[in-house]
Amino acid sequence: MEKQKFPKRKRIPVAVLGATGAVGQRFVSLLDNHPWFQVVALTGSDRAVGQKYADACHWILANPMPEWARDLTVVPTTPMKIDAPLVFSALPASAAREAEPLYAQSGIAVCSNASAFRREPDVPLLLPEVNPEHTQIVLKQKQTRDWLGYIITNPNCTITGLTITLKPLLESFGLKRVFIVSMQAVSGAGYPGVSSVDILGNVVPYIYENEEGNMEWEPRKMLGTLQNESLELANFDISAHANRVPVPEGHLVCLSVELQQPGTLSEVAEAMRNFLAPAISRDLPSAPKAVIHLRAEPDRPQPRLDIMAGNGMTTSVGRLRPDPIFDYKMVILSHNTIRGAAGGSLYNAELLVEQGFIP
Amino acid sequence: MEKQKFPKRKRIPVAVLGATGAVGQRFVSLLDNHPWFQVVALTGSDRAVGQKYADACHWILANPMPEWARDLTVVPTTPMKIDAPLVFSALPASAAREAEPLYAQSGIAVCSNASAFRREPDVPLLLPEVNPEHTQIVLKQKQTRDWLGYIITNPNCTITGLTITLKPLLESFGLKRVFIVSMQAVSGAGYPGVSSVDILGNVVPYIYENEEGNMEWEPRKMLGTLQNESLELANFDISAHANRVPVPEGHLVCLSVELQQPGTLSEVAEAMRNFLAPAISRDLPSAPKAVIHLRAEPDRPQPRLDIMAGNGMTTSVGRLRPDPIFDYKMVILSHNTIRGAAGGSLYNAELLVEQGFIP
Amino acid sequence: MEKQKFPKRKRIPVAVLGATGAVGQRFVSLLDNHPWFQVVALTGSDRAVGQKYADACHWILANPMPEWARDLTVVPTTPMKIDAPLVFSALPASAAREAEPLYAQSGIAVCSNASAFRREPDVPLLLPEVNPEHTQIVLKQKQTRDWLGYIITNPNCTITGLTITLKPLLESFGLKRVFIVSMQAVSGAGYPGVSSVDILGNVVPYIYENEEGNMEWEPRKMLGTLQNESLELANFDISAHANRVPVPEGHLVCLSVELQQPGTLSEVAEAMRNFLAPAISRDLPSAPKAVIHLRAEPDRPQPRLDIMAGNGMTTSVGRLRPDPIFDYKMVILSHNTIRGAAGGSLYNAELLVEQGFIP
Amino acid sequence: MEKQKFPKRKRIPVAVLGATGAVGQRFVSLLDNHPWFQVVALTGSDRAVGQKYADACHWILANPMPEWARDLTVVPTTPMKIDAPLVFSALPASAAREAEPLYAQSGIAVCSNASAFRREPDVPLLLPEVNPEHTQIVLKQKQTRDWLGYIITNPNCTITGLTITLKPLLESFGLKRVFIVSMQAVSGAGYPGVSSVDILGNVVPYIYENEEGNMEWEPRKMLGTLQNESLELANFDISAHANRVPVPEGHLVCLSVELQQPGTLSEVAEAMRNFLAPAISRDLPSAPKAVIHLRAEPDRPQPRLDIMAGNGMTTSVGRLRPDPIFDYKMVILSHNTIRGAAGGSLYNAELLVEQGFIP
Repeated sequence: MEKQKFPKRKRIPVAVLGATGAVGQRFVSLLDNHPWFQVVALTGSDRAVGQKYADACHWILANPMPEWARDLTVVPTTPMKIDAPLVFSALPASAAREAEPLYAQSGIAVCSNASAFRREPDVPLLLPEVNPEHTQIVLKQKQTRDWLGYIITNPNCTITGLTITLKPLLESFGLKRVFIVSMQAVSGAGYPGVSSVDILGNVVPYIYENEEGNMEWEPRKMLGTLQNESLELANFDISAHANRVPVPEGHLVCLSVELQQPGTLSEVAEAMRNFLAPAISRDLPSAPKAVIHLRAEPDRPQPRLDIMAGNGMTTSVGRLRPDPIFDYKMVILSHNTIRGAAGGSLYNAELLVEQGFIP
Repeated sequence: MEKQKFPKRKRIPVAVLGATGAVGQRFVSLLDNHPWFQVVALTGSDRAVGQKYADACHWILANPMPEWARDLTVVPTTPMKIDAPLVFSALPASAAREAEPLYAQSGIAVCSNASAFRREPDVPLLLPEVNPEHTQIVLKQKQTRDWLGYIITNPNCTITGLTITLKPLLESFGLKRVFIVSMQAVSGAGYPGVSSVDILGNVVPYIYENEEGNMEWEPRKMLGTLQNESLELANFDISAHANRVPVPEGHLVCLSVELQQPGTLSEVAEAMRNFLAPAISRDLPSAPKAVIHLRAEPDRPQPRLDIMAGNGMTTSVGRLRPDPIFDYKMVILSHNTIRGAAGGSLYNAELLVEQGFIP
Repeated sequence: MEKQKFPKRKRIPVAVLGATGAVGQRFVSLLDNHPWFQVVALTGSDRAVGQKYADACHWILANPMPEWARDLTVVPTTPMKIDAPLVFSALPASAAREAEPLYAQSGIAVCSNASAFRREPDVPLLLPEVNPEHTQIVLKQKQTRDWLGYIITNPNCTITGLTITLKPLLESFGLKRVFIVSMQAVSGAGYPGVSSVDILGNVVPYIYENEEGNMEWEPRKMLGTLQNESLELANFDISAHANRVPVPEGHLVCLSVELQQPGTLSEVAEAMRNFLAPAISRDLPSAPKAVIHLRAEPDRPQPRLDIMAGNGMTTSVGRLRPDPIFDYKMVILSHNTIRGAAGGSLYNAELLVEQGFIP
Repeated sequence: MEKQKFPKRKRIPVAVLGATGAVGQRFVSLLDNHPWFQVVALTGSDRAVGQKYADACHWILANPMPEWARDLTVVPTTPMKIDAPLVFSALPASAAREAEPLYAQSGIAVCSNASAFRREPDVPLLLPEVNPEHTQIVLKQKQTRDWLGYIITNPNCTITGLTITLKPLLESFGLKRVFIVSMQAVSGAGYPGVSSVDILGNVVPYIYENEEGNMEWEPRKMLGTLQNESLELANFDISAHANRVPVPEGHLVCLSVELQQPGTLSEVAEAMRNFLAPAISRDLPSAPKAVIHLRAEPDRPQPRLDIMAGNGMTTSVGRLRPDPIFDYKMVILSHNTIRGAAGGSLYNAELLVEQGFIP
């Protein structure tokens, strides 16, 4: 991953919880040569603890495992043995529900990719391009829960690109109704995840029980507003269908959107094309040059061709056209294990550093 | 293909136009042992004419080429040299536009899978389960165009299963708005069709220029009503997104539908589950036992598992559930080269025989 | 599966051990309407026991689950509660090693797809087309082990088609050296088996630790001879490379073979084309009409097109041509979960019935 | 593509012939920011001539089209209108046979990926790691044919990695017999190339008529020796089977090799691991750090994970183990459109510059 140049500062020690899984590996890969963070510990399950990371981990990424990671000895997630002010959590939901509060309680900032706390009203569901001000509610979180640290989460990988795309539309035109159908890559299910028997030459019109419910709710939290230290959900409706397709990486979403205020096709295009992240999020190490790349070709974006736009952090939008029922149709592509998981969590942590939330 | 038993009658001689292509091969395969029809001629392009079918044709189906077809000599589509009252057209649109009228003019019934005449107001767009009465307009067609024969067409493969699913909903509840996203198999593009370079591990959110426009229009023609010998389009709106996925056979459609009249989930389920084809279409050789198979599993239908339901002629519907914006969501699967192409055309021809339209 | 007609006899009660897995499901599917066998019990793991088969089993086959199987209550494999003279074992190797002897001891004939006992010198590794006379060694097996019943096994799915192909070559020309490279379907690894993350758009040049060793040994056992109640390995060498490819069903093997005696290309072709199973194996319910289908096209056999030859029981061979180092090259295709697993086991059981080995 | 740093020199103007096809695009992509070469012209077919490259070309690579290429106007291949001392040819064989001699005649160095002249005795078939001295025969070529320029070719993509692997084995132990089976990516067939209908979930055991013949001959030319200005073929035998698999990029080859002299497994491993390109080829811009990466894992190399080793220029070898018939088995992976096509041609051109063959 090509990094921009940043002023040298002392690198902050970090750990990755659940480092041997699919998202854990992506964290390790993206943290290689990170200008602000230095990995000091990797945690894993009982089976992995005590082994070198290179032996404990069935590495599934095309980028080779970083050399520094190979010899790190995997430590247990609990009891907590990490000496770092910041941890990235790639834990499964059930493990996250148990372990992350222990870390937060003891003063650690937890940037979590797990779904366990996304619905909690005092836990930010964070996209630096969309709602950096939501980090304010960690103050309430610490106070209410009597924690020295806190948890912030990144959203479900499928609606990450969607929410980023909706942000400029909400700002410029307001949102009324949103229809989405996802075609999700197999890597979204982790490893081993989806059986090849199930997905080769097939589409499975189902992800897991509450995937669609989450897709219909999470964008409203992120696009919501802070009112007296509380998050108010954005007031628009979403209907979601979720599908698994035989694609390695990259979640594609077909979107039909009804706006509050009328906008011409070129106004809508401009709103997306000109969208900038809020100033505080704009120049962080993981920030992509273009938040949204609006493509003009009739058949783009495609996972195979466009997934690495902005090192996997740019949201690609294409096929913007009028919708016979709502206002506009378009197609959105986002990298599910970079922008939608580990890369998003990393970007969140950079925002926290910039905001002074990491000691 | 397991056939029901039908009273023996003298078999009607038929030809297949464009028999060497993907849909042409499907016609040849489905016509093998057909109780009513006997293939007497196969037409092909200049390159194929004069060769035996076995040599002229790069056979792409898993069912072997029928023995009787192997030694048939391919004849030209034009000038017309066919002695049969009925032909099936698997021609590309441009060739169909030129050749089909010549056949119709000379007294032949043309059952066409081509898109060339689907939009003509006097050409039925026919699904025997949905609108068998629309065949009446061929009388007007013959009269207006001064033809001894006529053309009938089957619809775009992607909306075949959709239209069949909408029919009982229209009858029981009325339709207001329909939002659809297709995930279409590669065989829908013919042979060689989609390059493997484009589609392996990928989704292409585009089919061809007017695919979505056709998906938004054709169901309204088929669900429309005959008024004074004219077809009036059904009055509801459709918004369509079309995608190509790396699936061999079977088009999947995600549907959200808004009804005119309220219906509970179980009423809607019953309407689809109990749907019967009109009496005249019910017992034809290609009629599936169940028009719609409503599945209860959370993750079905799937192309890999359900595509051959009813020998490829049954429409599988699943995941019926409430929709947060419209009334109900569901998923529809239909075999694109059987129900959506050659099998549908064959079923249409059987209906014409039953209705006395074939001399 | 279209069955030939056989004289009605009282059907023999059978059970399937490990019926919920991938091979177990194939047994259940192939036993539907079997003329000689009637399934009276299905066993499963602790998780499945006590549930109806339809609920316990994540059915992965495109043919629907037979109706009679849906309501059968899954029983434990051990302790043995089966009242049937014959069981089919689809158990994993470790479970087979423990359970199958218990069944054999108590007088039951075990037709096993598991690898656990394939290397035992007194356990036949059986292909009815190749070595039906090897069943004789079960007499020794019963005697030595003091069992009332016995175990017979079918071979590794990858070398089933190979061994059938080598048989006529061995008989007509003798064999010296055999080079094979397999390209194996994902269904050979069971369910969930191979992760989609590992195999989408990929080839994995590895199956499991001893796959290649087994491929180099098992054909020599089956092509060996009975000497004084002992099996003598056939005396030729095999070198094997094994690969996993993103194919749903059908193992393809590239073969280069060096013969003992010279044979022209047409003699070699004739030997394979004319190969008949031994008389006793020829007319059993699962026997394919053609043991070997030798194809003449330059690009066949292919899994997608040829896998269901002979209802999945025929071995397809193609691309027979001279080899610059050995004598001939060719390509072999065999259905790995039908001929290479459940169908093969069923065929073995039919042979045992015909030979009078089932009471 | 990360480039090493090279002393600035004036960049040599070059053209790409057949620049709109699959290999042509790869040339354009790899020539982006090349330290020694600067693209001044792109040629295409009649359909493309006169259009901007961005409009004429259906770009199929995941790396975006270089900005400088977008606005270049495509010129005809013939009549020749190129003002450059060096051209890269990505022409189809038939076009190459006609056009390349015209360029060579007029004084241009043609580095060709086409197969047209590979078998000519006075045309080097060149891999800089293997036979840089073979460029000497262009002197004879120019003389004999009375050309001011010359043609050099890179070999068939499938045997590129194989030949590189055989080189250190030949040097250290000598070669007697080589048995190879390829599993080739779809990109090897160009664009549109392989139909998705043919290859989804399938293996096709056939490439084109003489693929295997070329695989059995070309390595012997490259590993042959210059004798009195003539190339003498290396004296060992090759038997090849070629297969197409549903993999986007990366040709995998299973190799069994018989050596002239005995070597232990670790000696063979060392020979490959320590293999260096000849000094003159070692530090060129396209030279990979490691010519061969010998992997120790039991299941590598794999196309998905290892194809970009050394920016697509390193040959990955794995699964080195004894062979029951020959001496050793192993698996070889090489990037078919980089090392095996455009990248290889570029590396050849760099060698020619270094050797002083480009004015």
